[in-house]
Amino acid sequence: MTSTTNPARPTIAATATGGPVVPSASLLRPLPLDEVRIRGGFWGERQELNAQTIVAHCQSWMERIGWIANFDAAAAGTVAQHHHGIEFVDSEVYKLLEAMAWELGREHSSELATRYDALVERVAAAQEPDGYLHTSFGRPGQRPRYSDLEWGHELYSFGHLLQAATARLRTGHDDRLVEVARALADHVWSEFGPGGRDAVCGHPEIEVALAEFSRATGERRYLELARSFVERRGRRQLATTLFQGSEYFLDDLPVRDAEVLRGHAVRALYLAAGAADVAVETGDDELLEAVKTQWANTVARRTYVTGGMGAHHQNEEFGSDFELPPDRAYSETCASIASVMLGWRLLLQTGEARYADLIERTLFNAFAVSPREDGRAFYYANTLHQRERGSEPADDELSERAEASLRAPWFEVSCCPTNVARTLASLAGYFVTVGDDSVQLHQYADLDVDTRTTEGAPVAFSVRTAYPFDGAIELTVREAGRFRLQLRVPEWARGSATASVNGEDVRVDGAYLTVDREFAAGDVVALSLDVRPRLLRPSPRIDAVRGTVAVERGPFVLCLESVDLPREADFAELRIDTATPLRPTADGAIATLVTGGAPGDAGAAWPYATEGTLPDAPQHTSATRFEAQLHPYFAWANRGPSLMRVWIPRA
Amino acid sequence: MTSTTNPARPTIAATATGGPVVPSASLLRPLPLDEVRIRGGFWGERQELNAQTIVAHCQSWMERIGWIANFDAAAAGTVAQHHHGIEFVDSEVYKLLEAMAWELGREHSSELATRYDALVERVAAAQEPDGYLHTSFGRPGQRPRYSDLEWGHELYSFGHLLQAATARLRTGHDDRLVEVARALADHVWSEFGPGGRDAVCGHPEIEVALAEFSRATGERRYLELARSFVERRGRRQLATTLFQGSEYFLDDLPVRDAEVLRGHAVRALYLAAGAADVAVETGDDELLEAVKTQWANTVARRTYVTGGMGAHHQNEEFGSDFELPPDRAYSETCASIASVMLGWRLLLQTGEARYADLIERTLFNAFAVSPREDGRAFYYANTLHQRERGSEPADDELSERAEASLRAPWFEVSCCPTNVARTLASLAGYFVTVGDDSVQLHQYADLDVDTRTTEGAPVAFSVRTAYPFDGAIELTVREAGRFRLQLRVPEWARGSATASVNGEDVRVDGAYLTVDREFAAGDVVALSLDVRPRLLRPSPRIDAVRGTVAVERGPFVLCLESVDLPREADFAELRIDTATPLRPTADGAIATLVTGGAPGDAGAAWPYATEGTLPDAPQHTSATRFEAQLHPYFAWANRGPSLMRVWIPRA
Repeated sequence: MTSTTNPARPTIAATATGGPVVPSASLLRPLPLDEVRIRGGFWGERQELNAQTIVAHCQSWMERIGWIANFDAAAAGTVAQHHHGIEFVDSEVYKLLEAMAWELGREHSSELATRYDALVERVAAAQEPDGYLHTSFGRPGQRPRYSDLEWGHELYSFGHLLQAATARLRTGHDDRLVEVARALADHVWSEFGPGGRDAVCGHPEIEVALAEFSRATGERRYLELARSFVERRGRRQLATTLFQGSEYFLDDLPVRDAEVLRGHAVRALYLAAGAADVAVETGDDELLEAVKTQWANTVARRTYVTGGMGAHHQNEEFGSDFELPPDRAYSETCASIASVMLGWRLLLQTGEARYADLIERTLFNAFAVSPREDGRAFYYANTLHQRERGSEPADDELSERAEASLRAPWFEVSCCPTNVARTLASLAGYFVTVGDDSVQLHQYADLDVDTRTTEGAPVAFSVRTAYPFDGAIELTVREAGRFRLQLRVPEWARGSATASVNGEDVRVDGAYLTVDREFAAGDVVALSLDVRPRLLRPSPRIDAVRGTVAVERGPFVLCLESVDLPREADFAELRIDTATPLRPTADGAIATLVTGGAPGDAGAAWPYATEGTLPDAPQHTSATRFEAQLHPYFAWANRGPSLMRVWIPRA
Repeated sequence: MTSTTNPARPTIAATATGGPVVPSASLLRPLPLDEVRIRGGFWGERQELNAQTIVAHCQSWMERIGWIANFDAAAAGTVAQHHHGIEFVDSEVYKLLEAMAWELGREHSSELATRYDALVERVAAAQEPDGYLHTSFGRPGQRPRYSDLEWGHELYSFGHLLQAATARLRTGHDDRLVEVARALADHVWSEFGPGGRDAVCGHPEIEVALAEFSRATGERRYLELARSFVERRGRRQLATTLFQGSEYFLDDLPVRDAEVLRGHAVRALYLAAGAADVAVETGDDELLEAVKTQWANTVARRTYVTGGMGAHHQNEEFGSDFELPPDRAYSETCASIASVMLGWRLLLQTGEARYADLIERTLFNAFAVSPREDGRAFYYANTLHQRERGSEPADDELSERAEASLRAPWFEVSCCPTNVARTLASLAGYFVTVGDDSVQLHQYADLDVDTRTTEGAPVAFSVRTAYPFDGAIELTVREAGRFRLQLRVPEWARGSATASVNGEDVRVDGAYLTVDREFAAGDVVALSLDVRPRLLRPSPRIDAVRGTVAVERGPFVLCLESVDLPREADFAELRIDTATPLRPTADGAIATLVTGGAPGDAGAAWPYATEGTLPDAPQHTSATRFEAQLHPYFAWANRGPSLMRVWIPRA
């Protein structure tokens, strides 16, 4: 979309401030959090919920169940006797620190700064003299360091500490945590760098973290380490188990040889994000192309309509092409976040709208569904079809993890809540980019943007919108300047979107509306997206949803929930009358439904019938028709346990 | 169907010879293996394969990888240093012994008898003075006995030893293995009986084994133990894990309170079989009714068309009602065997054909699919839809277990091959029963039957048939006698079956053709079942197969395999033209198929399309029509790796 002058690739240099990802070379440049701010609306409310509730919820749970106290015990030398939680709970504390760091960069709070500093001190106190920092390994009475690379998650945990430190650097603080991170990264260099252990961690994460920490610090060795960890993948070096093979660990193939993402979804996506960073920083175009191919094939064949990824509960894996069962969707919250991380990296390199399209879809659906509306419970796995009314865990109940059908306050493996927190705090960083002489709005919200193009032209504007509940987006320029303004037209709105500049219609074609002019303060660019509900049909290759449709409205995938149905409707027998148009409502759609069982389908007999013994088209007995409202998927089960489905059988 | 004089329930008394199950009270009485013999045909060939190959295959694998040597090492006191395999590999040796015992009862072989005796000696040598016998626990350097009831599988392994000893008793041998089993059962009584440990094993099996060993030995304490283990279930006593909750262990509810089978499928079915035995022997009608209800609900809602059970790879569990994905069918071979065990017990008590119907379906499909045609590789999980061409493990390759898409010679958890072996060796025991004045043929094969009704009338006849490839079954009486002869009419043949006695047509109605007369030697009863192929439609409640049909022929479920399709057919795009009649072939059916992709379904783009952007009914580009043969499911992948589906989308 924009062209770049393709400067000689710079030697890596510490970036000052910025968002989560700051490549040293990219077509589009991301903005730091002080140059793009969300001011209310859908995401603003969620950032507020994060600031007010989610971050504190995470901290209080980890205080209560001893995960933070592990660091105190490590410092005191008693952690071997009293370690709380599984091996990688350190990483949750680090993701919380990262969330706090971004949150402080977004909106300073001295109360939060005090809590952050205190927490950093407790973590720092547990660091060993040589830089190693882990509460589960290496101390007398514990297993030796790096004795369980498959499952110990040491490097994975380190990676999350480095990402927290990166967040601090990017928000203008070279503090104690950064010092701890440097010492830790130096330790990893001495252990796993040239002449050291020729090994990888069972759970990728260190790769993407080292690459970014290298960018943030300017330390080339960290990038070299990240590159080594990426290149070492695929040698079947990690010990497999009865259940987990080399594919699970992404150790079956070199990263550059894979055609599609596979194995454990979160691991695969973190690794791909790290590989993209390494490819960019080392000029390895072959590796970058491989990651782009993997992304494209994964999106075309292994992605739920919500943007969620991972079709197997078993091993939290992707599954095969087109194997996308709605009822057994794993679609882990962390996988959605990792997908956004990967998509963002590819968007910065290519400027292609398809990456921003999937980011939007994922954020509004597979990601936004995780936190309960009060911010005190979370989905880990995100089903698209709930057949049984589950029961909600109590507020103080530690859940056993992913099999739970309802949001839980905390999990024994609790990677998702802290991941939600760090993502919401840094979310604005994924919305806007600048090019040489251009600025791009990839995502819509009430925004204030104050930045410059790469060539230095000032860019200041505000966006006001009720998107995605309404399709009208209005951008007002606040400072005169010449730049190409580009507004993404989501794929579902292409062909129907309209736009104007200061009231005069302008043509919208392609994936980005482009307005290239000398802007004056007060200029208004308006984009109108058609957010009326629409029916969606799956590819016939997706066996699990044959004969069904979904309904979307703007970027929202809608769903049908039992709480919105009349008491007499049998949820298992519902069908949608696709001949009757959907009626739009403020946040969803009214659909016409049919209910009533077919003869012999009462669930008391053999559920397979010879053709001829039943009429060819099932004649439903006592079928009734009624209307019901479909609501956005992200909000399901916020009104208590319910049955739910995204894909609705056609009448 | 027949009436019984309802004798006062006898005190338990050792049964002389018999098949795997000999209730002390039942409506129908099963026959021992010397009174019913399979003489060729589908099952005869498989019994021969078992005798010639499978039993030896199992033994040679377990010799090779040290599972049998564990007993030698235990006897020598060195097993703590060198134990091979997971904790419950003893049980595979016991299932092999059981297979050998039934096989010796079926067809004596002095070579096999010598191997059996030698193997029993090695097992016996490892028994401890107090009767305890396990190679993974309790010796110096090993974990203490009963320190891991959740996962140690000690009682589970004991159960398999008791079943092997029962097979010996039932085939007329009160030998060294029986002596070992008595000492072991007495040990369990002293440990878990009155005043002992109030606990259960994570994996049920001891219940059904103790109940039958009690029947075989006449020792009432063993029944009392079985009853206790059944009654102790449902107290949430077994420690749960991140992944496995109380339901997994069947420890969530008392057995008599459950409405449907749930949790780990094999565990659930073994427990239900044991509960049925306990209910029968203790006159606990409430418990028996509960098991019957669980069976009925499970068959109506949680059973694959192949008879297979278990819809989750995760935890090898049943899953929810109507959650029956063909591609992720777990349908473990052992679950099919356990389902036959349970169904047989309920058939003996009720005489209801539905149990025999499911036994037949399960045997010809979910069970028969497991062994490869050469008897040297086995399916553990039995998918109904194979999307990717897998690669076959090498003959000497130990496989990691269930995720394998193709048959494997042996598994690290290898419960299925030995289970197949013991079931094939004892299979004739599930075919025929007698009542007071009657005899029932529940399953068809070339059979010779020589028995008496319960009242003492001689019953001798031969059955000759090419069933199930052909529907003609001919029974010739060999000895004069008065009895009611009952031949099951499978549910798919009811209404169309015809029959004759000595050439004169007789009426067939209901689930059993009944011929009540004074038979003369040479009398011929002929039953003709319509085995022409038929289309089958699933309940609309089974979301995973909406819009598809299956094809059956006689008791066979058929499938479509890529090796039977023209090279240009795209397996993922195949649809069946249900308007064109199926043409029968010798073992399957010719169906008319349509192939050709819909626009945009090439797998390179987002796989969900807004209605209106594509025509409402998918217009397939370059669709071609052709005919292809569907073969019985059990035989799939015998011609090498292939793609396969049972449920075929409708054109």
